[in-house]
Amino acid sequence: MPDGSTAPIVLAFSGGLDTSFCVPYLKETYGVPVVTVTVNTGGFNAEQLAEVEARALELGAAEHRTIDARQALWDETLRYLVMGNVLRGQVYPLCVGPERVTQARMALDVARELGAQALAHGSTGAGNDQVRFDVAVRILGEGMKVITPIRELALSRDATADYLEQRGFPVNREKAAYSINRGLWGTTIGGKETHRTDGVLPNDAYPDTTAPEDAPNTPETLTLRFEQGVPVALNGEALSAIEIVERLAEIGGRHGVGRGMHVGDTILGIKGRVGFEAAAAAILIPAHRELEKLVLTRWQRYQKDHLGDFYGMLLHEGQYFDPVMRDLEAFFSSSQDVVTGDVAVQLFKGSARVLGATAPASMFNTGVATYGEENTLWDGRDAEGFTTIYGVHALLAHRARNAR
Amino acid sequence: MPDGSTAPIVLAFSGGLDTSFCVPYLKETYGVPVVTVTVNTGGFNAEQLAEVEARALELGAAEHRTIDARQALWDETLRYLVMGNVLRGQVYPLCVGPERVTQARMALDVARELGAQALAHGSTGAGNDQVRFDVAVRILGEGMKVITPIRELALSRDATADYLEQRGFPVNREKAAYSINRGLWGTTIGGKETHRTDGVLPNDAYPDTTAPEDAPNTPETLTLRFEQGVPVALNGEALSAIEIVERLAEIGGRHGVGRGMHVGDTILGIKGRVGFEAAAAAILIPAHRELEKLVLTRWQRYQKDHLGDFYGMLLHEGQYFDPVMRDLEAFFSSSQDVVTGDVAVQLFKGSARVLGATAPASMFNTGVATYGEENTLWDGRDAEGFTTIYGVHALLAHRARNAR
Amino acid sequence: MPDGSTAPIVLAFSGGLDTSFCVPYLKETYGVPVVTVTVNTGGFNAEQLAEVEARALELGAAEHRTIDARQALWDETLRYLVMGNVLRGQVYPLCVGPERVTQARMALDVARELGAQALAHGSTGAGNDQVRFDVAVRILGEGMKVITPIRELALSRDATADYLEQRGFPVNREKAAYSINRGLWGTTIGGKETHRTDGVLPNDAYPDTTAPEDAPNTPETLTLRFEQGVPVALNGEALSAIEIVERLAEIGGRHGVGRGMHVGDTILGIKGRVGFEAAAAAILIPAHRELEKLVLTRWQRYQKDHLGDFYGMLLHEGQYFDPVMRDLEAFFSSSQDVVTGDVAVQLFKGSARVLGATAPASMFNTGVATYGEENTLWDGRDAEGFTTIYGVHALLAHRARNAR
Amino acid sequence: MPDGSTAPIVLAFSGGLDTSFCVPYLKETYGVPVVTVTVNTGGFNAEQLAEVEARALELGAAEHRTIDARQALWDETLRYLVMGNVLRGQVYPLCVGPERVTQARMALDVARELGAQALAHGSTGAGNDQVRFDVAVRILGEGMKVITPIRELALSRDATADYLEQRGFPVNREKAAYSINRGLWGTTIGGKETHRTDGVLPNDAYPDTTAPEDAPNTPETLTLRFEQGVPVALNGEALSAIEIVERLAEIGGRHGVGRGMHVGDTILGIKGRVGFEAAAAAILIPAHRELEKLVLTRWQRYQKDHLGDFYGMLLHEGQYFDPVMRDLEAFFSSSQDVVTGDVAVQLFKGSARVLGATAPASMFNTGVATYGEENTLWDGRDAEGFTTIYGVHALLAHRARNAR
Repeated sequence: MPDGSTAPIVLAFSGGLDTSFCVPYLKETYGVPVVTVTVNTGGFNAEQLAEVEARALELGAAEHRTIDARQALWDETLRYLVMGNVLRGQVYPLCVGPERVTQARMALDVARELGAQALAHGSTGAGNDQVRFDVAVRILGEGMKVITPIRELALSRDATADYLEQRGFPVNREKAAYSINRGLWGTTIGGKETHRTDGVLPNDAYPDTTAPEDAPNTPETLTLRFEQGVPVALNGEALSAIEIVERLAEIGGRHGVGRGMHVGDTILGIKGRVGFEAAAAAILIPAHRELEKLVLTRWQRYQKDHLGDFYGMLLHEGQYFDPVMRDLEAFFSSSQDVVTGDVAVQLFKGSARVLGATAPASMFNTGVATYGEENTLWDGRDAEGFTTIYGVHALLAHRARNAR
Repeated sequence: MPDGSTAPIVLAFSGGLDTSFCVPYLKETYGVPVVTVTVNTGGFNAEQLAEVEARALELGAAEHRTIDARQALWDETLRYLVMGNVLRGQVYPLCVGPERVTQARMALDVARELGAQALAHGSTGAGNDQVRFDVAVRILGEGMKVITPIRELALSRDATADYLEQRGFPVNREKAAYSINRGLWGTTIGGKETHRTDGVLPNDAYPDTTAPEDAPNTPETLTLRFEQGVPVALNGEALSAIEIVERLAEIGGRHGVGRGMHVGDTILGIKGRVGFEAAAAAILIPAHRELEKLVLTRWQRYQKDHLGDFYGMLLHEGQYFDPVMRDLEAFFSSSQDVVTGDVAVQLFKGSARVLGATAPASMFNTGVATYGEENTLWDGRDAEGFTTIYGVHALLAHRARNAR
Repeated sequence: MPDGSTAPIVLAFSGGLDTSFCVPYLKETYGVPVVTVTVNTGGFNAEQLAEVEARALELGAAEHRTIDARQALWDETLRYLVMGNVLRGQVYPLCVGPERVTQARMALDVARELGAQALAHGSTGAGNDQVRFDVAVRILGEGMKVITPIRELALSRDATADYLEQRGFPVNREKAAYSINRGLWGTTIGGKETHRTDGVLPNDAYPDTTAPEDAPNTPETLTLRFEQGVPVALNGEALSAIEIVERLAEIGGRHGVGRGMHVGDTILGIKGRVGFEAAAAAILIPAHRELEKLVLTRWQRYQKDHLGDFYGMLLHEGQYFDPVMRDLEAFFSSSQDVVTGDVAVQLFKGSARVLGATAPASMFNTGVATYGEENTLWDGRDAEGFTTIYGVHALLAHRARNAR
Repeated sequence: MPDGSTAPIVLAFSGGLDTSFCVPYLKETYGVPVVTVTVNTGGFNAEQLAEVEARALELGAAEHRTIDARQALWDETLRYLVMGNVLRGQVYPLCVGPERVTQARMALDVARELGAQALAHGSTGAGNDQVRFDVAVRILGEGMKVITPIRELALSRDATADYLEQRGFPVNREKAAYSINRGLWGTTIGGKETHRTDGVLPNDAYPDTTAPEDAPNTPETLTLRFEQGVPVALNGEALSAIEIVERLAEIGGRHGVGRGMHVGDTILGIKGRVGFEAAAAAILIPAHRELEKLVLTRWQRYQKDHLGDFYGMLLHEGQYFDPVMRDLEAFFSSSQDVVTGDVAVQLFKGSARVLGATAPASMFNTGVATYGEENTLWDGRDAEGFTTIYGVHALLAHRARNAR
């Protein structure tokens, strides 16, 4: 390091080609130890985590840390995505954006613990992740330097592979046909078909779900229990939110549920297309929404839908740390007080169909009124008075416009 | 009539028990001719219309008019529901509310043409339709009296049947297990299961669609062409919007597409639940939305989603004549200038899956940038500058809060 | 009472002609004791309250209760109107609507305490207050009957005066030229000029403020301290919010501050015009807003402005009990965490001019950047990168539209 | 020029130190002719424009162009700011942002006409203007290079002065105590006091308005006529919008109207404070808003306020070319159809007080209802029915929550 510091550099490490390159590159360039950190937001199983760790040490990392961040991911963002019924473009759960927030925050914790002089990440200059990562570190890690070798050097894939091979590190030069980002909330997939707007990914590009055509011929019905807006039980079994998400991914995936393609706006202004499979979100969000229909008023629904969309947009765009997000979370939490009850969902051939819901605070079965039937809240004369006055403003507007 | 007028009363007539009752009742009570009008918004075929006419005359109507209002329905409201991607609670197309607006307006035209002294309709005091009908007539038909015998008398079903039988008119006393409202934009169904929130309608309650389980085992792919936001061709064949909607209802219905249940807020403040089948909307709206993702900016999408939701809410609630609706339509029309292109949709076992879209004004394939790849619009140093400044406001907020 | 109950009727009582009529009328008509309640939301001083009590007893009330509801009014609604910077049509503080909520709630408390069989109020069928009162009682007082003699009987002013005189009660038949509603948050005034849209009230119609032309020729500067969004000190003296509001009304009124006229939408759909004087709101809201400009982010400001407007609309329209209001209050409270600091305001000839503000959590003076000057957060190259990417989406939209 | 091109560089020129530096600098550095363009958006009078031209030629410009862009500025943006009642933070008219859009567009027209190889502007890297200018040129002038010497070189004021003096050009080294940006819609002022948040500019920093304390002791009343949302006459005299704006600036300024200070969010994320004087906006916007209160429905008002705020935000932030702005303009234009009528405004000691308005399409004086009085649209029983049903949703919510 120019200033002679021997404090380490902490590298957010996934085991892929780009972050693999960074280990020897940072070590050589800055002449200090490199500590690798893998913040697991649900994308790795135990075996994979062991492989990642071995790879880091093989590449010369002074130390490797593995952090299970699934609970933090749920607590910080995913639960609000359920409360807010957030689906980008009505289809895409925010699989990737929330992970980056949690990953940056936790990698930064390690950097601070170790007195690191910099935090490095492998983002290129082309996508959303650099923004999310940089912004998080700039805000939370005042004074912490950020190093982004891949963006700075604009190296080609071949150049990074050459660099590693020249140093004797084994490299798998075959580029996978599809780039995969796996996480607790879903898997995002990029490849040939996502560079156009008019075709879908082939079935074998989806790593974990069954194609709808190949899904069971018999529907499967689940029951979900929510308490104050978050899932607490599946088919009568009390489980943590993490467990429910993981089980729904498995069960839903078997039925081909949660697959999709989405064209969206990136932070940098260009359009991007992704494939995804996210069965848990595809089940939980419609189920949660149905429950809300029973217990929230029309204006709660209206405001929540708009604010939920806004929340999702800012989270997608790396603005998690704007304090408006805390205010929105306060709104959501307030509204969820009554969102307790049971929902039945049927999975069949790629779709999740909500069968119905019940709730202790349901405004539906109050014994006073059934839609379209006689009721005890008003009579025909009341209704006549209501309709008479209800349209007065539009009547006056109509008359006034005609009177001109 | 108290004032001795012999001007007729015009009755919006569907042929059901309630409006059947109204024919002799109005004639006897007011002592003037009753002219029946059936404004067909897509719910009747030719044979049914002939039956309705015969019934009206049998009941003593002085004259019966049949009006084909499908095109008016499309022009006045449905096309804006496509432009605005309007689905109530993310699932329910506005099948019923728009029909009432067009029906009231056209029945009123007849009433004025005939110099009628009043317009009558068969709404009860319990539901949304009375509001929509009353409001429309009050606004458009200044001075036109509205008569609502069923609401005023609060008669039971048996009482109205007795009344008709006493006068020698044949009555089918069997109440259908399900009440059905058919229209161009879909069919709404009420019955035993919609008086609760936790079960679905049985398959045989759906009049026109196949159950997803019984749908073909082979997916069917359609292509839709939109011009400036409205559908103009299906599978390469140029068709009117009405024709496309009717064909999609048939094709989609065969694949079990468009069925659903919805719990929503009624105008009168209570919750109501309906079943529905609306395959055309279930295909057209996601297809249209996909096309928009290619050609609209993020802020157009954001504002359109919020304004579309608001538009749907007011239309549902009988506020079509508030001039804000015209302003919203101007917004939608402006935005649709570029919404031209082709969309492929696959139908399979109850779901409509958008496969992709292409558009002449697509912001996607502009040859300058592909998401996640190198591009000609900026370099890594630009991106670094962008991310540096992009988070400044949240950084300052974070510092300021910590500095307290 | 038809059912022979001798439980009293509780009457919300102001001492005016309409509620005076109600005392003997209710007593005679229902044959039960009438208990009068005056819920003082700031409109009466001690002397006036004593007069109101004497009048009630003179008219035959079995008992009279006086309740000081100023603190409840502040806690329940006014503080959120400050947090949300709520001014209807950008000018009119919600002087009346919030009072009705608190008055209904507290009168109902008395009715329940006394086991009353009904709660009566003197609203006519013409205005907003009947809606606010009825809705509050229907919601909070399940089973409590509401009696509204003036609305039900549609009595003229003369008829009510005759009724009282016939029973030997003194009546002031002179209708005041202006109807006045005084309260903690301001005074609303109706009269000849408010029945048109094109003139202002004469100076002597304003009960408590000096005309701007007659106000002192020397400006007066105040300092206000806010903590977490609510005022806590005036000119360095720690005071309760109630005290600050009352003092600002007095000081501001002396300078002609807070007078205005407003045309607005009533709950019933017609337009209404009022004059008002509300100096405290005219000082507190711009001061609070200025402080927020220092400590809130752009998105907090944006969402708060929109949600504040919505909150004001629903409160005005008698929808205080919709639970969405609680969710909005949660949002506001969350946002106010940092709204602590000092604001200087200058009063002069009818206007309140904010001179500036300081705040511990100010995002302004952070020592890192001054607008328009060199700064330590970015350099020219960063700025170039930022501007390059910042307009990409609009550039692509422009190109795509031209490429058609 | 590296590529040997002798095509000129077009420089947006104001005559200040920074753009003065740019003339010889660009000429020397690029070896090509420099053509200066002054796009007058209302900031210069004829004499000043002649001085600017003389200065440009003295500095070696090959040619100087002066463009009167006031009408373009009005047509492109200002009229929508009136329609949308846009005031940033409820106080600051968008004086500067709109000018940059028009200036960039018109300078670009010249550049294209002359086959220029680049467009240069004098923005620094610190403020909003660089973003607005760069974005506009990038979008409208595809292929046109942008040169920003001051931002690129980060030169100090002294360095640029030295540079000019070394070449024999006279320089006024005294930095004005206040930087002034004058334009049709108002004047923005920066200086010592705007680098803090707690004081106001001294009276002599305001170039064109009288201090409220020194304003006439007699109020002056104006009448404004609007047609379809834009001003067309002042005191009965038909005038162009430009003329009305200029006269209001003069008359209002004499009364101390339109002065203020504003703390706002810059595009780059930091807070900035400005002083301003903008009497025309301070008169026109409240007058226009008052007229709208008579003719628009509550929902038009609601949506317009929110969309107007959004429009102002995007315009401020240099996003005028996002097509959502065209959609918003379509909304505004639609809503303004009925915004025709007369408004009286009184100017006195720094404030503009709207006295009232009349409009052919007023919803107020329709002869059917006066607020608070008996009316012909409904009776007391109707009102009772209305209030009964109006609160049903909140009643059910209340019951359901209590039933848990």
